[in-house]
Amino acid sequence: MKNKFVTLLASVGMCALLGAQTWIWYPGDYEIWLGNQMNNRRTERGAFFPPFWKTDSHYVVVEFSKEVDLPEAETIQLSVEGRYNVKLDGKLQFGMPDKLIIPAGKHKINIKVWNQLTPPALYVDGRTIKSDASWKVTYEDKEWIDESGKASDTSTTVYMDAGSWNFNSKTSRPSLFRLPCKPLLAVSSISVENGILYDFGRETFGYLDFSEMRGEGKVLIYYGESKEEALDTEHCETMDILSVQDGTVIDLALRTVHPLTNDCYMMESSKAFRYVYVVCDEQISVGKVSMQYEYMPETYRGSFQCDNDLLNRIWEIGAYTMHLTTREFFIDGIKRDRWVWSGDAIQNYLMNYYLFFDSETVKRTIWQLRGKDPVTSHINTIMDYTFYWFLSVYDYYMYTGDEKFVKQLYPRMKSLMEYVLGRTDSDGMVQGMTGDWVFVDWADGYLDKKGQLAFEQVLFCKSLETMVLCARLAGEMQDARGYEKLASSLRKKLEPAFWSEDAKALVHNRIGGNQSTSVTRYANMFAVFYDYLSEEKQQLTKQSVLLNDSILKITTPYMRFYELEALCALGEQEQVMEEMLAYWGGMLKEGATSFWEKYNPDEKGAEHLAMYGRPYGKSLCHAWGASPIYLLGKYYLGVKPVKPGYEEYAVTPALGGLKWMKGSVPVPRGEITVYMDRKTIRLKADKGKGYLYVAAKKQPKASVGELQKVAEGKYRLWIDTNQEITVHY
Amino acid sequence: MKNKFVTLLASVGMCALLGAQTWIWYPGDYEIWLGNQMNNRRTERGAFFPPFWKTDSHYVVVEFSKEVDLPEAETIQLSVEGRYNVKLDGKLQFGMPDKLIIPAGKHKINIKVWNQLTPPALYVDGRTIKSDASWKVTYEDKEWIDESGKASDTSTTVYMDAGSWNFNSKTSRPSLFRLPCKPLLAVSSISVENGILYDFGRETFGYLDFSEMRGEGKVLIYYGESKEEALDTEHCETMDILSVQDGTVIDLALRTVHPLTNDCYMMESSKAFRYVYVVCDEQISVGKVSMQYEYMPETYRGSFQCDNDLLNRIWEIGAYTMHLTTREFFIDGIKRDRWVWSGDAIQNYLMNYYLFFDSETVKRTIWQLRGKDPVTSHINTIMDYTFYWFLSVYDYYMYTGDEKFVKQLYPRMKSLMEYVLGRTDSDGMVQGMTGDWVFVDWADGYLDKKGQLAFEQVLFCKSLETMVLCARLAGEMQDARGYEKLASSLRKKLEPAFWSEDAKALVHNRIGGNQSTSVTRYANMFAVFYDYLSEEKQQLTKQSVLLNDSILKITTPYMRFYELEALCALGEQEQVMEEMLAYWGGMLKEGATSFWEKYNPDEKGAEHLAMYGRPYGKSLCHAWGASPIYLLGKYYLGVKPVKPGYEEYAVTPALGGLKWMKGSVPVPRGEITVYMDRKTIRLKADKGKGYLYVAAKKQPKASVGELQKVAEGKYRLWIDTNQEITVHY
Repeated sequence: MKNKFVTLLASVGMCALLGAQTWIWYPGDYEIWLGNQMNNRRTERGAFFPPFWKTDSHYVVVEFSKEVDLPEAETIQLSVEGRYNVKLDGKLQFGMPDKLIIPAGKHKINIKVWNQLTPPALYVDGRTIKSDASWKVTYEDKEWIDESGKASDTSTTVYMDAGSWNFNSKTSRPSLFRLPCKPLLAVSSISVENGILYDFGRETFGYLDFSEMRGEGKVLIYYGESKEEALDTEHCETMDILSVQDGTVIDLALRTVHPLTNDCYMMESSKAFRYVYVVCDEQISVGKVSMQYEYMPETYRGSFQCDNDLLNRIWEIGAYTMHLTTREFFIDGIKRDRWVWSGDAIQNYLMNYYLFFDSETVKRTIWQLRGKDPVTSHINTIMDYTFYWFLSVYDYYMYTGDEKFVKQLYPRMKSLMEYVLGRTDSDGMVQGMTGDWVFVDWADGYLDKKGQLAFEQVLFCKSLETMVLCARLAGEMQDARGYEKLASSLRKKLEPAFWSEDAKALVHNRIGGNQSTSVTRYANMFAVFYDYLSEEKQQLTKQSVLLNDSILKITTPYMRFYELEALCALGEQEQVMEEMLAYWGGMLKEGATSFWEKYNPDEKGAEHLAMYGRPYGKSLCHAWGASPIYLLGKYYLGVKPVKPGYEEYAVTPALGGLKWMKGSVPVPRGEITVYMDRKTIRLKADKGKGYLYVAAKKQPKASVGELQKVAEGKYRLWIDTNQEITVHY
Repeated sequence: MKNKFVTLLASVGMCALLGAQTWIWYPGDYEIWLGNQMNNRRTERGAFFPPFWKTDSHYVVVEFSKEVDLPEAETIQLSVEGRYNVKLDGKLQFGMPDKLIIPAGKHKINIKVWNQLTPPALYVDGRTIKSDASWKVTYEDKEWIDESGKASDTSTTVYMDAGSWNFNSKTSRPSLFRLPCKPLLAVSSISVENGILYDFGRETFGYLDFSEMRGEGKVLIYYGESKEEALDTEHCETMDILSVQDGTVIDLALRTVHPLTNDCYMMESSKAFRYVYVVCDEQISVGKVSMQYEYMPETYRGSFQCDNDLLNRIWEIGAYTMHLTTREFFIDGIKRDRWVWSGDAIQNYLMNYYLFFDSETVKRTIWQLRGKDPVTSHINTIMDYTFYWFLSVYDYYMYTGDEKFVKQLYPRMKSLMEYVLGRTDSDGMVQGMTGDWVFVDWADGYLDKKGQLAFEQVLFCKSLETMVLCARLAGEMQDARGYEKLASSLRKKLEPAFWSEDAKALVHNRIGGNQSTSVTRYANMFAVFYDYLSEEKQQLTKQSVLLNDSILKITTPYMRFYELEALCALGEQEQVMEEMLAYWGGMLKEGATSFWEKYNPDEKGAEHLAMYGRPYGKSLCHAWGASPIYLLGKYYLGVKPVKPGYEEYAVTPALGGLKWMKGSVPVPRGEITVYMDRKTIRLKADKGKGYLYVAAKKQPKASVGELQKVAEGKYRLWIDTNQEITVHY
């Protein structure tokens, strides 16, 4: 009975999703516009700092249309962001009507909106007619009339399904969207020289709030993720200056003027900090200083607990780091860039699938990163980031099963791939051309970026394979065949081009057709978890590269993510557990309250704060620092989708040296919970069917069903119930 | 002495032009943005009516840069439209500084501006450093830094020269631009039923102005280009409704609210009209009604006068029609569309070269029409209009010699041609595909739009030839060679494909490789003045098509423009003079105060007002109606450039049956004046050198120099002075 009930709920949920009455817009446009608000909030010592790649914007004129068939007449109410017109069955209505009577029968409603500042958006409220994803939108209807007044054929006009988020009431206008805030007090304050240093206890984000600002003069505000940074007024990365006079406050960075009311003033710009050092002119004092903490409302749907407290703490700080960097979009770090970066985002997405399962923010970030045609550079200007963007669509589809999104996005996937294919060399491989940033990693050592990098070809190949899948989902079979050819041709070239028998590994790159002698971890670890190497070569690589300390060490959590994932995929959970405790535990020992952009255990004290040639250049709250969230969910609790949207799952729990662990992994409309100790596994899955894989010396026993042996010491159990199953092993 | 003085003035003029301190932006961006304001002012009976093609917009983030080498330090003042930052030698300055000290020596200034609503724009005022076209702009500087803080190579970043117009003071912000207005009174008013009909004496444009609005209630306003239209409250094309209460006026079409101050209210929307019919509710009266005439300030640099008063009147009404349709851009007609259309615009440009020589409005219109990449349809969705766009660039270059503009525009010419080339058939010809509007003309008869239209191939071929020239100007020699091949291949196919020995003419079209039997004027007349036919075939065509009354008659001034031009090019000035007097004279007899979109002398009374299946659909002030301006300047005064920018000219005056004529044609920085009667020609050219061509039975005599005989009855005189020359013939 329960099973049936859940199915019913799920289908009700689906209907609600499709029919939700909500503000709609051209798909991707609100996302791109909101991304501009986000990306343009970066500042550097009070200077505005926009991105260096092309900033796209929304289509300024959009037409919304819908065909209806009504049993009886109904009145619809219209709310619109922009100047608009309304056509009923082709007839223009006077002015900008805010309500319209639609007679019974078949009718066509067209609403065309112009808005330069914010995306054209529409909210329609009727008894049965409601704005939702079933409305069609276009930026050019090509509906001309001939001399006789006859309308043209619009059959080749490209109509998309309207985009939306959660603006589900008339008054929640998309352009007014702001993240919510709540007040936070400083945990301590001390006088330092002419100013006061406030400590908010841990890394945080928001608006400084003054409630006892009295007198006149300047207030200098220096923010710091560390105490050192806040107190170093010459070098801290972010700062503000207020000038108070005649009852008004001038924010000198923004050149805005606001009244000072009841001695209260809240900063207009948000900042990331733990410490704030406030220095006032003699004639002014600020008294009590608090802040408004700004955050994305998220439910922590994933969880992890075990017998190791340090690991539990790592998970918690990882989750907090993720939460801080999950904002309007998944961003890199909250202090410095505050930009959306594709290489960072793909990791956020993966962590997110094990923490919030916030699909909307994934989709929004993917739209934002892609921007508009024409493509004039790689995503974020970085070649690898273009490839991560493709891969992230594949991941999204696997975790959510959201085929519709892939279909909507496909034209922009295709034009981006056309850009890439237009820049391949005579081997059909990619090399960095002038204007391309070949990033790979922030490495503590020389990383050759010239010629054909094995790492880039591996990502390129996987991107082509992603295009095959997505072209099929979009029903573009000819495209799929084309991408299939390219992918298989490139894949066949990888080993001959980069495998070195001497090194027993893929070499780093090839210049003028000649393999270099350099071996790095990057290509090898990606080849492992994409299964691009034979079983034998995978094992060779493990020894010659992954577990070989003489190979250039990875010092960013960014690439540690993949390094540790590759080791987990090779069954090295115990080794990875030690690494996690040492590396992330190492940051905690250094006092981290969120995880960092980069961490080299060999560095000491304030060395940890420096990067980019600047003493506080490093971000101490960086999304890519939170990867244990992902590793623990996917390779210890062991949960992953096998078919899109967890229609089929695989659960392969591994203690990796722990005594016990328990946790949950969110899936669409539910969760999978896992408990494991050295004798027992308990599993409960709200959705889908799948195999539980158990490593055991002898045949384990299950409370329901029977385990099959799949290999020496490996058993599996097919689960098609949503009741808890217990396995003794 | 005078000669020297003029040269000096001219060179001073050049300097001023290059070094003018002015607001700058990304080239084309202000034009596209202003175009959106223009194109979105169309209304239809109080409903907003935006275009049906893609509306592009400005780049929202733009970087401006300049390298300077100063003998001594100087302070610059910055005015910016948008949020911005300032870098001096790579170092970001705090906040948004409005002044900056640049030390002596070499320095680099970078200013990055974000503006969603209006184009990022910059005004820099220093002793020697001034914002002008020498500043570089880009929408993506690709200037990233590596881990050590080292900046990337930006050598492939695409920098353009900044765009500008005439916003030459700090306070004349581009986004605030409005055309000027002046008050005009109605010439009469009469009561009709419940309302009052105001007559402004002739076609005009602007804002209705009420100065004695008293009481409360609704005011209904019906505009008409004709009396019939204004009084037909159910069918007039434009209307407004005001609702006055509690001291405020609500414009119901715009849904805006304004205070009623001292009983005065001026309409917010401009309209085109001669008549206005105002109907008030019983409780309200509007008293005196006047208007604010809105216009583009232009100097009438071209002139024409002759012994025929009707022709003089045609020229005057043509000039007024041109002036009314010369607004922020050259538009089609002032009542209905008020949009920028490429096929209309190319004629405005040509008339403009003989009237205002307003190069800025030509450039602005060309940028606006082109919009941004990607190209998703033909210009205005019309195939022929794409080709006219290319041709208009060629014309502009010939008349002005402005090579710099062609260079700036070239990348957008190329991507538009790529769009066209991507849609050619296996013969390398263009056919209308679904979504393409094949316009040709509003014909009073069936015009087949299927298959390969000879007319479209002729325009396509000329466009390819234009690309050859422009690619060379832009230094893109490989492109030029490619276009040359395509152009010559297509040109060779024209006669075999379309010439019919039976018809002695080019046939209208070819379907599936088979010539149709239909012959129309269009392809034949264009082939004549592009010199695509042999001398013999040209003459055949003249008899078989151009002077043959059984071929479908042209009833738009639009195509009459080309028809009469072709006849003039064939030396038929007397015939064309008769046609002009009959056709444009015919409109004047019907009471025209500006020239119309379409005129069929066979129609009667209110039939003249109808079009598009609507009783007042026709525009009675349409730019393409003004072509006598062009014909009289080019084929009677006979002035045209032979080398770009009139460095060399040709003057071939022809009385075409007149007793005498005199007039002037503007050239860059000066004019060419011509007087001619049946015995004498007088010519004075401020600029360039060139030939005066004289048709005479015996050797004419010149006041300076000697005429050479070039053919039987044809003589020419080389002129390289700017003094007046008299020739007796």
